[in-house]
Amino acid sequence: MEIKVVKKVLAANDIMAEKNRQLFAEHGVLAVNVMSSPGSGKTTLLEDTITRLVPDVRPAVVVGDICTTNDAVRLARSGAPVVQINTDGFGGDCHLAAHVVREGLAGIDLSQTDLLIIENVGNLVCPAEFDVGEDLRVVVLSVTEGEDKPLKYPLMFRICDAGILSKTDLLPYLDFDIELAAANIRQINPAMPLFRLSTKTGEGMAPWIEWIKDKVREKRAGTV
Amino acid sequence: MEIKVVKKVLAANDIMAEKNRQLFAEHGVLAVNVMSSPGSGKTTLLEDTITRLVPDVRPAVVVGDICTTNDAVRLARSGAPVVQINTDGFGGDCHLAAHVVREGLAGIDLSQTDLLIIENVGNLVCPAEFDVGEDLRVVVLSVTEGEDKPLKYPLMFRICDAGILSKTDLLPYLDFDIELAAANIRQINPAMPLFRLSTKTGEGMAPWIEWIKDKVREKRAGTV
Repeated sequence: MEIKVVKKVLAANDIMAEKNRQLFAEHGVLAVNVMSSPGSGKTTLLEDTITRLVPDVRPAVVVGDICTTNDAVRLARSGAPVVQINTDGFGGDCHLAAHVVREGLAGIDLSQTDLLIIENVGNLVCPAEFDVGEDLRVVVLSVTEGEDKPLKYPLMFRICDAGILSKTDLLPYLDFDIELAAANIRQINPAMPLFRLSTKTGEGMAPWIEWIKDKVREKRAGTV
Repeated sequence: MEIKVVKKVLAANDIMAEKNRQLFAEHGVLAVNVMSSPGSGKTTLLEDTITRLVPDVRPAVVVGDICTTNDAVRLARSGAPVVQINTDGFGGDCHLAAHVVREGLAGIDLSQTDLLIIENVGNLVCPAEFDVGEDLRVVVLSVTEGEDKPLKYPLMFRICDAGILSKTDLLPYLDFDIELAAANIRQINPAMPLFRLSTKTGEGMAPWIEWIKDKVREKRAGTV
């Protein structure tokens, strides 16, 4: 019975996701859903990413948390439009659903936006099940989390279009085999582009930024 | 409608949790539900904890993951009885529910057990909502995850009986203010015992082990 109802909720979500997707298409906005565990460094990565994209790309952010506006405050420093969504207004949801993103969009002028970043709730499980109308999904795995995570949370890694191994500056202090982590990701999703980077040192940021810029260009040209 | 059904599922869960609790009481077993994000170092901590508890305490483990038996393989090295539960047999659940723990118990001889450790699915959100019949709940937060996590995931920190700040050996390489993290936890849960430890250096393990041993003794004496 639980499963049946969850299916209904997912079907309703898919309808709203499709509406979001149409809205993004009308405005030529590339929507990127960024997901990870709590503490992977998502917000820091997005702050740095936005700073590097401006002014070539005009980004905006919808950021989801159960509570607090900490992430929105941090992201707003970048100068990009930021809307915070607290899912405790939506039953404390452990993920962003399409209708919740839709409410967040009311605070963003899509005609002045090239790239909409959706920073999902920190959770490597549930957000993978909810389409929010995004063009691309990105998973961030910090090198402090262990090489086995792609195998333990395969759905997330399977549905994503790019993977980021973050906090690589910490590698010298960890027993983390980054080649094994990459191989585990490839086992789940062989073709996924994989970026290894550190916002602290800036190492590896350039290829990630180029990838996003390419995708924004492709969206404008109507090929994403 | 979604919320109504979720309430029904939670009510059914509570009934099964109560049955588990009775079973633990009959055998004088202390049941501890350990929760955290993916990659907080839960499994490593539990391996080390079990090794330090034996032979004074007879531990057993029920370990939950969506897929893989990696954690069970690691925990079995400690010599303790270990049962792996894969929630992909239960709809890919993002948490352990009481009936799922119940199935795991079939593989454990409770008459030969003093301490049942329930290693939950790596998720700082959903497991907080599901009582599995445990006596105590413990949350593990690694120092790589950021000081704000207790404020962003307050339910988890509110419902727990002890908190662990793990991987303290990494502090010299991080911009992590452990006093701020502890203050944020205290803001949510003022009375919660808090352990700062590293399995790598062994620092801080002793007070945690003593706390668990005390709780096992109290359970045997019928005062937990």
